[in-house]
Amino acid sequence: MTLDDAALKNFGFIERPTKNMINIDPLQTGGILTEDARRALVEWGDGYSICDNCGGVLDLIKKPPVQEFVHEALPEFLGVDQARITHGARESKFAVMHAIAQEGDTVILDGLAHYSSVVAAQRARLEIRKVPHSEHPDYYIDPEGYGTAIEETISETGKAPALALLTYPDGNYGNLADAKKIASVCHEYDVPLLLNCAYSVGRMPVDAKELGVDFIAGSGHKSMASCGPIGVLGVNDDNGDYSDIIFRKSPTNKNKEIELLGCTARSATLMTMIASFPEVVKRTRNWDNEVADARWFSEKLEALGLIQLGQKPHNHDLMFFEAPNLYEISTRVKKGRYFLYKELKSRNIHGIKAGLTKFFKLSTFQVGRENLSYIVDSFDEIIKKYE
Amino acid sequence: MTLDDAALKNFGFIERPTKNMINIDPLQTGGILTEDARRALVEWGDGYSICDNCGGVLDLIKKPPVQEFVHEALPEFLGVDQARITHGARESKFAVMHAIAQEGDTVILDGLAHYSSVVAAQRARLEIRKVPHSEHPDYYIDPEGYGTAIEETISETGKAPALALLTYPDGNYGNLADAKKIASVCHEYDVPLLLNCAYSVGRMPVDAKELGVDFIAGSGHKSMASCGPIGVLGVNDDNGDYSDIIFRKSPTNKNKEIELLGCTARSATLMTMIASFPEVVKRTRNWDNEVADARWFSEKLEALGLIQLGQKPHNHDLMFFEAPNLYEISTRVKKGRYFLYKELKSRNIHGIKAGLTKFFKLSTFQVGRENLSYIVDSFDEIIKKYE
Ligand SMILES: Cc1ncc(COP(=O)(O)O)c(C=O)c1O
Ligand SMILES: Cc1ncc(COP(=O)(O)O)c(C=O)c1O
Repeated sequence: MTLDDAALKNFGFIERPTKNMINIDPLQTGGILTEDARRALVEWGDGYSICDNCGGVLDLIKKPPVQEFVHEALPEFLGVDQARITHGARESKFAVMHAIAQEGDTVILDGLAHYSSVVAAQRARLEIRKVPHSEHPDYYIDPEGYGTAIEETISETGKAPALALLTYPDGNYGNLADAKKIASVCHEYDVPLLLNCAYSVGRMPVDAKELGVDFIAGSGHKSMASCGPIGVLGVNDDNGDYSDIIFRKSPTNKNKEIELLGCTARSATLMTMIASFPEVVKRTRNWDNEVADARWFSEKLEALGLIQLGQKPHNHDLMFFEAPNLYEISTRVKKGRYFLYKELKSRNIHGIKAGLTKFFKLSTFQVGRENLSYIVDSFDEIIKKYE
Repeated sequence: MTLDDAALKNFGFIERPTKNMINIDPLQTGGILTEDARRALVEWGDGYSICDNCGGVLDLIKKPPVQEFVHEALPEFLGVDQARITHGARESKFAVMHAIAQEGDTVILDGLAHYSSVVAAQRARLEIRKVPHSEHPDYYIDPEGYGTAIEETISETGKAPALALLTYPDGNYGNLADAKKIASVCHEYDVPLLLNCAYSVGRMPVDAKELGVDFIAGSGHKSMASCGPIGVLGVNDDNGDYSDIIFRKSPTNKNKEIELLGCTARSATLMTMIASFPEVVKRTRNWDNEVADARWFSEKLEALGLIQLGQKPHNHDLMFFEAPNLYEISTRVKKGRYFLYKELKSRNIHGIKAGLTKFFKLSTFQVGRENLSYIVDSFDEIIKKYE
């Protein structure tokens, strides 16, 4: 590519095609900005804006109130001793793995773990052992499976795993495993537990101390109404001096935390998280209503012949459906497996991956009953249209 | 902190105090958004917006044209075989160090290296050896120093360094060392060279192949008119199969690059880089004028009794000044060492760190002659006021 005027015309400002659509994409429902965050984005958009009055440590900046947010509000919100901002849930997970494990150590992952947990472990050069889950239709993780996985690791390698991880909820079925029980099983073997809360922190109440977990990874762009990439990392020191290890300082640059490379969110992303925070805190207190919406929606789709997999009644807005009727339609219509995507798109609904009909996930988070009704009616119409 | 309404009022939307000021903060002059980037920020602000039509690999997204940007435009712009988006220059540096070196290996850094290069090496658990620079007033890096440092490493550890790094320009004096020469010295020993271009890519022309360097780290929020955190990483495979190593894929998740944890800029930051790109390409072609402005400004300040350190005549907008006269004033005025900051602030000028008078850095990048004249006049006024 020669960077002449013609080539450069492909870049510049580009419109977002899904703007103003009803959004049920699980990746996106919890990351939609609040009005305050949208204003913050414009106000703080310039590179390094947040560093106007930095004394050398990003999370100690007083104006804007980064220090208060990171060192007071976030620990309270997550129920941890120490919190930091990262670039996302995966970066939080990698930071923990890289800091507390040694190359070649084992990490235990739930069988439903997100690929980013796997890749974080691979980047940290760790061995992965998975706790199995039950199969279709429940996808249940038995807490005792952690004990078995830990014992197998010890007997095969002679060394306890450096860390265990639970995806809470998992990113496919939206299942919330028994984190408290799993933490206590892991702690019997002195193995710390990291909770991957990409889909929970910012949507529902999560408290590390209450659950007894040692680390929490959260995702700002996924669940905290923030412009990304941004995440949070919480460390609970009840079972070890973990924050000393993870946030250790450079021997040469004494105020820089090595594992965070000195600083992380060096622009507007953190200002959007701070801007949305009051609403985010409040929405977690409204979680019961969100769960009620999810259950209502699940019942309505089941009445149309779809089957919701995973926990039932469901406890989270992220849901996975099996749709034999939609799949059957896809085998005989002209647009094939893209028919559902196109039908939904023509009804201004975004979020089910193009090409999927038999199995797909969606999220009802903050979509609201009115839009959810409209989506149910749309599914009904689409099914009837092709009957 | 209890997260009650009173506490939450400290967050939400917060105004940026330095908005609309004339900005000479070296961190910030190159990161000010273009109009297109500002629009992109609003358009794509929601979390994971860029993933609307993702097929599983962020940098292969076709709509918006991420693939074209990352795989065609950026390699051309940087003069490399492969490019990727990262969270910033430091994350690019860490990715290279972590991927190509083994724990305990040595990395050679120029004596003027930014702290983030040091911390990246420490995070990757590498030993650091520095190439000395000459002292006040030049701070010159002798290319032969790299040969000496490499030979010392080999004789002391029995192993060649895994990597050498040059800060181009360095972040204090804005000195541009002889990168081409340094690359050829390193290559005599088969040591690859990483160029830290946080202050160059996006401001001035930089071409890895032309300079013969193996890796380029750039910073979007610092020098590419982007909302951060965002950076670029370029890999030139002329001297080794480096991109295969750095961008190796997960054995279990076959389309995910381990070192990037699968994906990096998962929101609007990348869309701001794409939005600004046409202007950024054009401004690098205007670099001679920027250098002329810097030299003009340096002469004017020297005429007022300040001394510009580092290369002279200077070749970059980032400049370091010694100001014995301002320091002398600070020792006897009421506001002490904060007087300069306050005087400049009252004149709507932002960017010299509060409390500094004797030594400080600033940047003239895209400030323009008119504002630069105003700044010179302001210094003149301030000096006269306290004479
Ligand atoms: C369960 C789960 N964990 C983690 C992530 C990654 O989150 P982040 O983008 O913050 O790294 C995802 C993203 O899809 C996810 O679904
Ligand atoms: C010379 C130099 N390199 C690297 C960096 C870090 O850039 P980034 O924020 O993109 O990691 C800085 C930041 O001040 C710098 O001055």
